[in-house]
Formats: sequence, structure tokens, C-alpha cells
Amino acid sequence: MYPSLKINSARIWSNLMQLSKIGGTDDGGVNRQALTQKDFEAQELCIFWANQFGLSISHDPVGNLFFQLKGKDPSLPVVMSGSHLDTQPTGGKFDGAFGVLAGLEAVRAIIESGVSPRRGIEIVAWMNEEGSRFAPGMMGSETFAGLRTLESIKKMTDQYGVSVEEELKELEKRFSFSEKRLLGQEVFCFVEAHIEQGPILEREGFPVGVVTGIQGVRRMRVRVTGDEAHAGTTPYALRRDAIEEASRAIEKLYSIFSNDETTRFTVGRLILKPNVPSVVASEVLFSIDLRHPDSEKLAEAERRVRIVISDAMERCMHKVWCIAASDTVMFDERILQTIENVSKTLGIPSTRIFSGAGHDARQMAHCCPTGMIFVPSCDGISHNVNEYTSQDDIISGTTVLCNVLAQLANSLDLI
Amino acid sequence: MYPSLKINSARIWSNLMQLSKIGGTDDGGVNRQALTQKDFEAQELCIFWANQFGLSISHDPVGNLFFQLKGKDPSLPVVMSGSHLDTQPTGGKFDGAFGVLAGLEAVRAIIESGVSPRRGIEIVAWMNEEGSRFAPGMMGSETFAGLRTLESIKKMTDQYGVSVEEELKELEKRFSFSEKRLLGQEVFCFVEAHIEQGPILEREGFPVGVVTGIQGVRRMRVRVTGDEAHAGTTPYALRRDAIEEASRAIEKLYSIFSNDETTRFTVGRLILKPNVPSVVASEVLFSIDLRHPDSEKLAEAERRVRIVISDAMERCMHKVWCIAASDTVMFDERILQTIENVSKTLGIPSTRIFSGAGHDARQMAHCCPTGMIFVPSCDGISHNVNEYTSQDDIISGTTVLCNVLAQLANSLDLI
Repeated sequence: MYPSLKINSARIWSNLMQLSKIGGTDDGGVNRQALTQKDFEAQELCIFWANQFGLSISHDPVGNLFFQLKGKDPSLPVVMSGSHLDTQPTGGKFDGAFGVLAGLEAVRAIIESGVSPRRGIEIVAWMNEEGSRFAPGMMGSETFAGLRTLESIKKMTDQYGVSVEEELKELEKRFSFSEKRLLGQEVFCFVEAHIEQGPILEREGFPVGVVTGIQGVRRMRVRVTGDEAHAGTTPYALRRDAIEEASRAIEKLYSIFSNDETTRFTVGRLILKPNVPSVVASEVLFSIDLRHPDSEKLAEAERRVRIVISDAMERCMHKVWCIAASDTVMFDERILQTIENVSKTLGIPSTRIFSGAGHDARQMAHCCPTGMIFVPSCDGISHNVNEYTSQDDIISGTTVLCNVLAQLANSLDLI
Repeated sequence: MYPSLKINSARIWSNLMQLSKIGGTDDGGVNRQALTQKDFEAQELCIFWANQFGLSISHDPVGNLFFQLKGKDPSLPVVMSGSHLDTQPTGGKFDGAFGVLAGLEAVRAIIESGVSPRRGIEIVAWMNEEGSRFAPGMMGSETFAGLRTLESIKKMTDQYGVSVEEELKELEKRFSFSEKRLLGQEVFCFVEAHIEQGPILEREGFPVGVVTGIQGVRRMRVRVTGDEAHAGTTPYALRRDAIEEASRAIEKLYSIFSNDETTRFTVGRLILKPNVPSVVASEVLFSIDLRHPDSEKLAEAERRVRIVISDAMERCMHKVWCIAASDTVMFDERILQTIENVSKTLGIPSTRIFSGAGHDARQMAHCCPTGMIFVPSCDGISHNVNEYTSQDDIISGTTVLCNVLAQLANSLDLI
């Protein structure tokens, strides 16, 4: 067993707080959406820190940012860790940021211990995990893992019509000093640290969760099309009111799914036309986020969603797309056991936990043995300005990650 | 009886078509919202035309634009006519524009007939009738009529935070050549020409409607407040989902009111926070447009709306405001008879009709004897790019308006 490495407890916390000021909102939250100026500033701050301890910097064509510590044997595939720097518009200080900064702190602690690992270690900040500016998310990791093409990503636009391609050009200009690398590579294994975003670890009193897998998700988009009409004069018989019919569908879907605790159903976004008080709406476009731990049950729920929407329509037209579909992914048992053993050796209590939220690790599981480390979320709150993890838990999670990465980077094989 | 004046049939139509190009959209509609550059361009075009036949130009402090033909006796209060130049974002070529251009054409025909009327005639383009950029609408006429204060209007902002006050300063700069006048004045009577925006005149075969009154309206705003939460991890028991509860309320309201043909109920706008697919929504702000010809029944419907919304809330907080309330207004019988008699003399068939839509004339009825002239709307379509009135009907309506204005401007009293 590798000797227990110690991280700098004050540094990881103060770095997290400093990073949270970039895009920080008055209410204590963070709004740092993908490929915005704030996202670029966050990358610059991480690069500033990484330069202090000599990591090499590179970007791939999809805008993923990599920090590399070279290993003694450059012929061996690297151990990779990391998460994302982008947030939801109403995000908190920890989601994503923790995984990137924990990775950087882990590598710094390894360097400061004076021991050079056999394999290189790379810390990555994946581009656009959240998907709130450019939907759907996980763009960087999905493209790295070969699950989407760079060309398809580039075309995506935000609500103002700005494309990913334009913003990637901005990024390339701004980070012209960063080494350009090809998309994808052989990776020995991937371990992501992240906040739980649910209430289980806190409730059960474990500072570390060994994540067994991620539940499947369908991201759907529904368009309901009616006709614009004057709100004061048009008789109901002549109306095709997109808000009336969309709200009927959404109400019905919630009434079905909110009684079923294993299925998670959320309508989080509506875009309306023309969206003025005195005109009957001609179009409602709404999102559906649907999740279930069992891939077959998830497929069944998707079919049910389509039927309910179709039944709710009386005069409007409608169209339903599935814009992203991921089945449930189970992580590599060898990585899980490594995390468990390291936690035990360090005397940090851990428990196995299944992830309701999606993470970049889901994509990496398609490329290499993958696992995740969770730390508790206070009251289970996330995607919210009140997202919080205690400094003690941040330190425990970062310490486990550091020792897991060190052990994996010195392993020739996974056992 | 005043001799029958003839208008220039080609000119009124070609002016309407020319004006519709300002803010004209690719699909044949018009997007010329209040106090935008397009609104200013439309005012400039009307001023260009009015200058051709020597009307004097003035603006009041709330941005209403007036064109005046002086009367032989300047001590007599003027006859006023007009409508508005702003449109809905998905508006058509006729709503509002017809009333302003019909007024200008009427005055031009009076001038060209060589007869000077006893009273002055003023044609007005009221500021922000539609209320789609700055809600609620009817700002110009309401402030002119003393029903709202200039100060309260100035504070209103559009969705980008731009205030009416800022845009009024822009308008003042752009129209520095226009004479400044005080707010409000004594008016002898007001007659507005407008498209029907409903199917009755076309169905019954009348080119002219003599409008008896306007049905009452409540414009309400509802805020449903929940909590942001992660869509994948947060159990339903811990959620306060503003979209779930707002859609339940909206669905219930539609199910009640859409079976009652005398009440008009419309939810036309929703504004959501944070409005991203993977976050449970923390806020939905939605509009309600509620109308009924009977003021008591309308008040009852408003009470019912409040109860239904309150009953639909389970965990979210909510607040309901009434941001504009107008009871049903009945027009002056003497003006209605003048319009009827002029139509009869001209051989243009007319019928009495009640207006479901609100108009600036509603406010003017608080200041002076008021009436309206409707022309048919093809298929009753309005607030829609397909809004259409035939050239024949435009000519009939303008001819009636011209002769009504001439007769009123020569009257010492209404009989």
C-alpha cells in the first residue's frame, strides 16, 4: 500500500472559495456558464495555480483543458481525474469546481511528497458539463470519449444564436499559449471527485461515497404548436392555444410521475412564442429530464411520456424529440475497491452510493475503467446558490482522491 | 347634412402597405413594438405625409404624437381621432395603423374638398397601445385621460431593463422639431377607427361596425415561487417545483373558463427562473388576460381565478396582482347615431357591434363623448401575421370616418 499522502487542507478550501468569485452572484451562488468569459477566467486561474507547480497545459479541439504531471514511464497510459468548471446559471460553489481543484491539489500533494509516480497523471476540466447554455451537456467528455462528433457539437447554439464553434475560436485565441492536442487518447483509468448533490451521505454520516454507477437519463424536447390570436376577441372554438395544451400535458405528466419515487421527472425549461399577455400563444417548447436507475424502466417511462403528451393534445400539433439518451452505467469494480481500500487505510469512513445525477465519468466509463468519489452535500441541495459541503468533507474527499491517484499511477495493472 | 366627402382610395391603401414595411417581417407580419426604432420610423413616415398637406405636429410628454388641422374657430375644443402605430411582436398590417392612417386620409380629404371646418381636427397616434414591450398597454391614452400618472409610466421597464423614461428621452431627441405640448386637453369628442379583430362583421356582411362599447378586462400577474434543485437527485418530497404547480393552476383555470364562451381567459406569457432543463424551476411568473362584457361577472371571474390558483398550490408560495382593471365601457349614443346616420347617407351598410378587444377609445370615453368605427377582419384573425382587411372595407371605413369627422367638426353641439 502506498504511504498516506497529506494534502494542504487550507489551500484546497481557499482555492475553492477564490474560484467561486469568478461568476459569483450577490446571493452567494455562481453563474459561470460554459464557454463564457467567466468560464475562460476560471480556466486562467486554474492554469495560474498549475503553473506554480509545473504542470503542462493543453487544450483539445472541443475545449477540454488538461493539466499533466509527467510519469517516470511516458509509454504508459496516464491516470486521469477531473470534472468541470462550468455551472448552472443559478449554481453553487462546489458542483464541478470541487473535482477539478481536488485533482489539482492531489497532484500538487504528490509532487510535494517528493515521490514521482510511474504513470503520468492528468487533471481535466471538461467543457460544458451542465448543458444550460448549450444543451445537452457533457459535450467535452462525450466528444473525448468518441460518443459525439466534434462537428455536431460545433453547430449547437445558445439562445442568442451564438455557436459552440464561435466560442471555441474565442477560447483558442485566448489560450494561444496552451499546447494543442488531438481529441481522445488511451487512458489507464478515470476517477472523478464530485459533490453528491443528494442527501444520503450527510444523513448516513459518511464523508466519502464510493459511487457504484450513474442512473440513466433521457433529455427530451417537446414542441406544441398552435396559432397566435387576439386574447380578447377570439372565441375558444377558433383557438389553438399552445400554452393551454402544453400546461395540460405537463400537469398530467407530473401527476403521473410525482407519485413514483424511482422515476425522476422534471420540466425545467419553457420557451414560448410570442410570449405576450394579450396574444394566444402559438408555440411552447419545453424540456423533459427523465431518469431511472433501471434502463428498461427508463425506456418504458419515455414511451409513457410520449403517449401522455399525445393524449393531451386537442387542437395543437406536437413533436417530441429525445435529444440525449444515456442508459444506466455501472463503474469498474476494481476502481471502486481501490477507493474503498484507500479510504479504509486512511481511516476515512466510506459507503457505496448510486448517483442520481449525471457526470462526465459516465462518458469516460465507455473508454477506460472508471470510478467516482462523492462528498456530502448539505441538505442534499445542489444546482442552487445554497449548495454547500463542509471544509472537513472537502478535505476528506481530496485526501482519498490524492491517495487513489497516487496508487493507480504506480500500478502496472488494475487488480 | 354635410355633403359627402370622397377619400383617395388608392392613397389610403398604398399608405397602409408602405407603413407595414416598417418592422415588416419575412412572413408578411409586422413587429413594431412601442418606443423602438421602428416605432420612431413609423412616426417619421406619418409626419412626412402630414407635412405634405400642412398639418402641425406635436408630441406630449408621454410620447403621444398629434397632427392638427386648425379650425375656423380656435376657441372651440377640437374633434379628435386616431389610434396607435405600435404592434404586437407577431402583429399584422392593420391593427392600430388603420386608425391613424384613416384619420390622416380623412383630414386630407377634408382639406382637399376646400371646406374649412369650424373646429380643429386632431389625429393622434397613442403611445404603446399593445403593451407587449411595456406592460400593461394603453399607456399613452390612459395618461392623456388622467387615469395614470406620467411618473408611474416612466418607471416601467421592458424585459431588458430599458425604461419608458429612457425611450421617451430618445423620442424627444429624435423629434426635437416637433412642438412640445402639455399632457391632456379639452376634447369635443373622440372617434377611433379600428379593425374588428373578430369574425362578426365579415360573417354578417357589414363593411362598417358602429361600436357600442368595450368589454371589461383584468390583466393579472401571478408569481409562483419554489426552490431550485437538481433534477436528477432531488426526491419529490424535497422539491418545490414552480413549473409543476404553475402548470397545475393554468390547466385548472383553462378547464374552468374554456367552457364559458362569455368569459375570455388567456395565459399568454410565462417568465421562468432559472429556465434550464436539469434544474427544478424556482419561479414562474405568468400573465392572465380575463375579459367579460358584464363588469360584475368580470369581478366574480377575477375572484374565482384567485381561489383556483390558491387551491392549486401545494408547496410553492404564490402572489397574484391585478395590474390593470377596466370595467366595461359604453360609448356615447350621440356619436353612435352620428356614425349610423353618416353611413346611411353614404349608402354604406353598418351594424352595431360590441368590442371584445380593448382600444384607446376606452380611455377617451372618460374624457369626452366617444365612439368607434370597426371594419371587418378576414376570418376574425388578429394579433397574427395573417391579419387582413380588404381594400374595399378599408375604403368604406375611411369614408365613413372622414364624413363623421367633418360633420362633428362643424357641429356646435352633439345632438
